[in-house]
Amino acid sequence: MDPQEFRAQAHKMVDFIADYYRDVESLPVRSQVTPGYLRSSLPSNAPEEPQSFDTVLDDVKSMIVPGVTHWQNPNFFGFFPSNSSTAGMLGEFLSGGFNVDGSEWATSPAATELEMLVLNWLGKLLNLPDEFLFNRSGNGGGVIHASASEAVLVALLAARGRAISENKAKGLEEQEILSKLLVYTSDQTHPCLHKACVIVGLPKSNLVILPTLATDDYALSLPILKSAVRNGVTKGFIPFFLGATVGTTSSSAIDPLPALADIAKEYGMWFHVDAAYAGNACICPEFRHFLNGVENAHSFNLSANKWLLTNIDCSILWLKRYEFLNLLFFIYTISFQLKTSSIQSRVVNFKDWQVAQGRRFRQLWFVMRLYGALGLRNHIRTHINHAKHFEILVREDSRFEILAPCRFGLVCFRLKPSVKHEDNGWKLNSSLLEAINSGGKIFMTHTVLSGVYTLRMSIGGTQTKRENVDDAWKIIQEEAQNLLDQEII
Amino acid sequence: MDPQEFRAQAHKMVDFIADYYRDVESLPVRSQVTPGYLRSSLPSNAPEEPQSFDTVLDDVKSMIVPGVTHWQNPNFFGFFPSNSSTAGMLGEFLSGGFNVDGSEWATSPAATELEMLVLNWLGKLLNLPDEFLFNRSGNGGGVIHASASEAVLVALLAARGRAISENKAKGLEEQEILSKLLVYTSDQTHPCLHKACVIVGLPKSNLVILPTLATDDYALSLPILKSAVRNGVTKGFIPFFLGATVGTTSSSAIDPLPALADIAKEYGMWFHVDAAYAGNACICPEFRHFLNGVENAHSFNLSANKWLLTNIDCSILWLKRYEFLNLLFFIYTISFQLKTSSIQSRVVNFKDWQVAQGRRFRQLWFVMRLYGALGLRNHIRTHINHAKHFEILVREDSRFEILAPCRFGLVCFRLKPSVKHEDNGWKLNSSLLEAINSGGKIFMTHTVLSGVYTLRMSIGGTQTKRENVDDAWKIIQEEAQNLLDQEII
Repeated sequence: MDPQEFRAQAHKMVDFIADYYRDVESLPVRSQVTPGYLRSSLPSNAPEEPQSFDTVLDDVKSMIVPGVTHWQNPNFFGFFPSNSSTAGMLGEFLSGGFNVDGSEWATSPAATELEMLVLNWLGKLLNLPDEFLFNRSGNGGGVIHASASEAVLVALLAARGRAISENKAKGLEEQEILSKLLVYTSDQTHPCLHKACVIVGLPKSNLVILPTLATDDYALSLPILKSAVRNGVTKGFIPFFLGATVGTTSSSAIDPLPALADIAKEYGMWFHVDAAYAGNACICPEFRHFLNGVENAHSFNLSANKWLLTNIDCSILWLKRYEFLNLLFFIYTISFQLKTSSIQSRVVNFKDWQVAQGRRFRQLWFVMRLYGALGLRNHIRTHINHAKHFEILVREDSRFEILAPCRFGLVCFRLKPSVKHEDNGWKLNSSLLEAINSGGKIFMTHTVLSGVYTLRMSIGGTQTKRENVDDAWKIIQEEAQNLLDQEII
Repeated sequence: MDPQEFRAQAHKMVDFIADYYRDVESLPVRSQVTPGYLRSSLPSNAPEEPQSFDTVLDDVKSMIVPGVTHWQNPNFFGFFPSNSSTAGMLGEFLSGGFNVDGSEWATSPAATELEMLVLNWLGKLLNLPDEFLFNRSGNGGGVIHASASEAVLVALLAARGRAISENKAKGLEEQEILSKLLVYTSDQTHPCLHKACVIVGLPKSNLVILPTLATDDYALSLPILKSAVRNGVTKGFIPFFLGATVGTTSSSAIDPLPALADIAKEYGMWFHVDAAYAGNACICPEFRHFLNGVENAHSFNLSANKWLLTNIDCSILWLKRYEFLNLLFFIYTISFQLKTSSIQSRVVNFKDWQVAQGRRFRQLWFVMRLYGALGLRNHIRTHINHAKHFEILVREDSRFEILAPCRFGLVCFRLKPSVKHEDNGWKLNSSLLEAINSGGKIFMTHTVLSGVYTLRMSIGGTQTKRENVDDAWKIIQEEAQNLLDQEII
């Protein structure tokens, strides 16, 4: 670690990255490689002798870049965005430079205190109730996790802690309680909740996945939920966790939070709101109403790395009462920890808020300061405007149809099948998607809504302009016409 | 995201980081701030207007740097090291630049393929058996997790999957199996195993923590383990997981892997080896014997970010049979995933190997190529030589004593108490540690071994030279003499 050598090589790396962003639009969005491509390019053993930085950087250009699907290409319209920014990257660089472990306040106080402060900033931009913020009187606050999956897992663990504690007070045994706990959610919820239930050892049948309907715009149905919860109680189970989503992965559907909060309250369930993607939009006053009801949730997660110009990974969980986690995770043993007992009770130790012990010093504040609230809101609004524009383009072409409401940056649509398409357009649209993606100029993904193969146009790239959206639509139209022409032949 | 603006600001950031490394030795190692220090320096709301990069960088210098405990200061001797390097940071920069999600092969093939290849490189340097490597015939391979805690949790989940599958075949019900599963480990094992047991919902009493003795150098005792396992079986429980450590956190103790593997085999237990810290040393042939027995383990973890010049986070888990995880995590729902079904069965999708869905594209290969195996081995050997040298210094001073064998970079010692120290030197040594750390020139941490307050000198900083170790020893001696002099007065 020679600072002068670092300086020289890091400047080269910066230039490589800047060139990459300058040129990324010219690269095929979806990587064109086939499985195993790298095995034949790189040796199967580590080099014995040190190699030069220039050699490795050359290999990055010739071997790695072709294997990358370029999420930062302005024509990337897949999944949900993972958009970066100059500010996000500079923050990452700084984190890498300090390379400290912020597992406890005492291991590097700035890491914990900055995270607390900045998650309060974001919580206020979202107009979250005070109970979700760090303040002197309260029990609440936010924490950055490595993924929304971990955030949801930790929310489930906090809920389990509360359920065990409350039901033990009623005289039940812990094992009996665990076997009776029921989780309710919709079939549109991200599978990470399913994964979390598996991890915590919940019996498979204790996760109740409720069907949604196109006529409800794929929102969780209140009558179906109420009936299922009553049914669970009747059978002697304990409904303990209700997982709602604002902006589902498939179609950005929105569960009816206020009514769900009432049901959760009536049955004593923990109410969690997953707004990993769409929650970001709620920093704009005109979209904040989508979060109405979150004030009655126990926990709430949002991934800033999805739409807030922040690098992977930055998934935030806000909790109103973190003591349920402390009960769970504050495990005695740490005979080797810092002698901070006198301050230990007065500080937040994020290791007790997450699965991991160690944690990186994330720099979300770079993004919030370099953009300001205004800049972040403009960023969101631009994408949503692009999506509304795209939705109009689709509606204007009678060969296509829209399949779900467009509220954020996502448009769900398809090429309409005719009577001769016996699979209701599945093959037609999956072929269209493959034709679009294999061209390499744009990249989209798909979902299935009510059994219907659905194309997803997900707009959120930092460099994506209206022209990119217009050009993408032309490509989609051309490929669609090609397919329809082939069918006629 | 303007490439030119990025270039200008990133070059400034690189210079800041290079200057930081040039000057870090002059900064107090342990942050001198008190809880809440940052709240009064920064506003309690996010700025509305964008702020300039220079303003934020100035705040980094004036507000953040004083709150950082400088893990990269060459006089940092706390915990275990978290050592970075030019190569490690350049890799981080590149990851930040691409900012792709490598959750599946198809989401960015290079991310998965490079990780597979490089974990094979490291596995071969460690002389792991082929079953732990990715190869065409096998079921094994490595995966990078965000922390050793997650690696251990995932190993426990794989073991649980196997135990459920095997015991169901014997006619037991899943809930009955789960309530009977027993985990065995020593009281020196990192608390992350305890945390993992809590997460997966294992009843508290099903984690059997076995006492260790100074006379065994704090290794797991075979007679104690055998007796405890027999006892569990007699009572109708199912021993299913044996967790061993190579290089414990407290004293770098080494559990007797070969004999433990035999016991695990006899009782059908999953055998996991946690070598988060010391495993790194085993890339040197002369230290590889400490891992003997790992060939009979089911899983093995090592944190390259602890001692292999790689930034946080890079905790690697190797498994011989990853299908136990696939059974667990491969959850149907992904109606929205890439149409890769034809290749899905032929590729590795790391989302099924971890808690999270998304994952960063980590660049461990930068470190392995820029150092080469030779460079990495030299790095390890230098630290171990420094530790041996420090151990000699302590032994030469009759006021001090060594409390555990020094095998890696860690020296456990204390100032010998006299008869007048009724607490067996607890206060004497805790006062000594506080005096050392509050001076700010060096930083150490402590542990408790057999009830004895123990100072830990943990040597592993990338920039740490023999002079740093000599100077640290002088400071320790001086502070000790100050304390002893005060006692006489």
